[in-house]
Amino acid sequence: MLLLIPGPVQTRPEVRAAMAVDIAPWDDDFRVEHAALRERLLRIAGGTPGEHTVLPVTGAGHAVVEACLRTFVPAGGKVLIPANGTYALRMVRLAREAGRVPVTLEVPDTRPVRAEEVAAALAADPAIGHVGMVYSETGSGIVNDPEAIGAVVRAAGRRLIVDAVSAFGALPFRMDAHPECDALAFTTGKCLEGMPGIGIAVARIDRLTACAGQAGSWVLDLAAIHEYALSNGPGRHRFTPAVQVLRALGVALDFYEQEGGQPARLARYAENARVLYEGVQSLGLTPYLEWRHQGPVIVTVHQPPDPAFTLPGFVAALKARGVLISNFFNTTAPTFRVGCIGTVTPADMRVAVEAMRGALDSLGVRQRAAA
Amino acid sequence: MLLLIPGPVQTRPEVRAAMAVDIAPWDDDFRVEHAALRERLLRIAGGTPGEHTVLPVTGAGHAVVEACLRTFVPAGGKVLIPANGTYALRMVRLAREAGRVPVTLEVPDTRPVRAEEVAAALAADPAIGHVGMVYSETGSGIVNDPEAIGAVVRAAGRRLIVDAVSAFGALPFRMDAHPECDALAFTTGKCLEGMPGIGIAVARIDRLTACAGQAGSWVLDLAAIHEYALSNGPGRHRFTPAVQVLRALGVALDFYEQEGGQPARLARYAENARVLYEGVQSLGLTPYLEWRHQGPVIVTVHQPPDPAFTLPGFVAALKARGVLISNFFNTTAPTFRVGCIGTVTPADMRVAVEAMRGALDSLGVRQRAAA
Repeated sequence: MLLLIPGPVQTRPEVRAAMAVDIAPWDDDFRVEHAALRERLLRIAGGTPGEHTVLPVTGAGHAVVEACLRTFVPAGGKVLIPANGTYALRMVRLAREAGRVPVTLEVPDTRPVRAEEVAAALAADPAIGHVGMVYSETGSGIVNDPEAIGAVVRAAGRRLIVDAVSAFGALPFRMDAHPECDALAFTTGKCLEGMPGIGIAVARIDRLTACAGQAGSWVLDLAAIHEYALSNGPGRHRFTPAVQVLRALGVALDFYEQEGGQPARLARYAENARVLYEGVQSLGLTPYLEWRHQGPVIVTVHQPPDPAFTLPGFVAALKARGVLISNFFNTTAPTFRVGCIGTVTPADMRVAVEAMRGALDSLGVRQRAAA
Repeated sequence: MLLLIPGPVQTRPEVRAAMAVDIAPWDDDFRVEHAALRERLLRIAGGTPGEHTVLPVTGAGHAVVEACLRTFVPAGGKVLIPANGTYALRMVRLAREAGRVPVTLEVPDTRPVRAEEVAAALAADPAIGHVGMVYSETGSGIVNDPEAIGAVVRAAGRRLIVDAVSAFGALPFRMDAHPECDALAFTTGKCLEGMPGIGIAVARIDRLTACAGQAGSWVLDLAAIHEYALSNGPGRHRFTPAVQVLRALGVALDFYEQEGGQPARLARYAENARVLYEGVQSLGLTPYLEWRHQGPVIVTVHQPPDPAFTLPGFVAALKARGVLISNFFNTTAPTFRVGCIGTVTPADMRVAVEAMRGALDSLGVRQRAAA
């Protein structure tokens, strides 16, 4: 089965197999391994030892994003969230339920957020202390620009939190180039091509210290995780982690480095997305985004207007042809979504396009272009 | 290596191997598997379909315990926590940082909490709405009595939350016999002999409905997890779980049922603890607890007063002999701790005792009895 979902992704057999072992997380050998893993992740995030640190939180991306919001935005504090998709709206909900005050900047889900929109919103409300942005919006496939948005946040003297859950490892970001950034959040099971189960924040140490005590949750407090590692050693965990996921991530990072790191991974995913985008067009389908806004993580496609098309029917017909895609969508208009990340190649994407051709033909879907 | 730690435990090869596979959590096949897993866990917890439900939270035991406190104890609400060990004190911290008001009932860490102590504390403060109790206190190895404590909570018209993290699956508890119990919390990686990474709450549906909206966290809100499963189907997850851990748990439950379920597992662990307890005595060592208070999950032993003994030296000497124990302790007095849970047998415990004999001899530890 070819897994074309935006995470958990298709992994290498060696990565999966690394999970099949019992590990005592507090064992001295594993502590060394975990400390080394944190250092490797810091390098990938462009962090500086002593200035930034790597903080794992067992849980989904949502858990580490909530942890970032709780740790750095004080209770009752305002956080501007530019929203052009589902994951931004989820950040809004995470902030609101944690007792922070999200200010939603609504943007159509068919284009990136513009830096000047963020600048205007910050100028209009001096009480906004933070901007929380989604880098790769898995809802539609759009990529927002943390360089441009980071610059206006910095210029306005505010702080940035980047949800890079479906971006990290493929799309570039360097913490040391973003002094305005409190934290960058990502997970093990997306573009790093590890297994799902752990969220990770790379955060500024000075800000962790300054913000200690305001999380309102022991479990989701990045400052407490940092303090524990400081007091007990960089390989120690406060609580039992999904430790096999960390072991597998180490193996995944070996392959990541062998492939050539972030530039090589981005190049492969971008080519995957291009083959897929052009492939669905060749089938008569209409991609949801204009090509200039299309990110490399997920390609979203309008559902054909033909009454013979149903999403469950199409997903089942694809599955019968060995291709698994999501059985739901997150855009304003009805779409289907196809992931371009994981251990998949442009050749796999051509296979997927042929499977789609077969599925559409077998369902009798003739009217394919979006209205 | 023989893993003798109180979780993550030693598992069967088939359980570990079940992790080595990519899974799309939203795939229809996995949804059926996950829904069936929830039903199996409900049966083990003595829950009634329609009255109780099973709610997984990716994270450590601490995450699901915090979720229980947040979901059922309102912000500012008082929760009485009888504390005879580290895990109860951790529950105190989880409650306090979540903005609840823990009332600590201090009890020596060498005996169980008495029901009359709980009754007196509840009578003294009518503002206490909940009791949060630790069933098996991994700090020392003591087992507290949820039957007796549950009865006084019920009689006082208060609500109960049970941290059964290191108890569930081995020590008996039936939700349908405890109408006063809002939630029972446990994890995948302890007495069920699965892999670590997911906490699970079995909770009352009427209480989830009544308490909706008070968690102050979207990630750690059991009511929201329940609502999502109601709206989207019992196999659906809100967020990407550590999905391989769920797959492995299903395999672990097959072995659990084959072994004879809770009574058989308790019998094996109790025999493990007896062999270990008598074994360390035969080496001249002094167990931390009197035998009558000794639970079946972990045996804690006083560190010998001989200056030749150091905990790191002893742990390393045992590891060189193929036995891994914790390299820290959680009791008032210096101890070492040896887990009795996981896929280990009384024969393994005899091996462990012989390894301890060799380790103590090699270190030259002659004075062994506690002062």
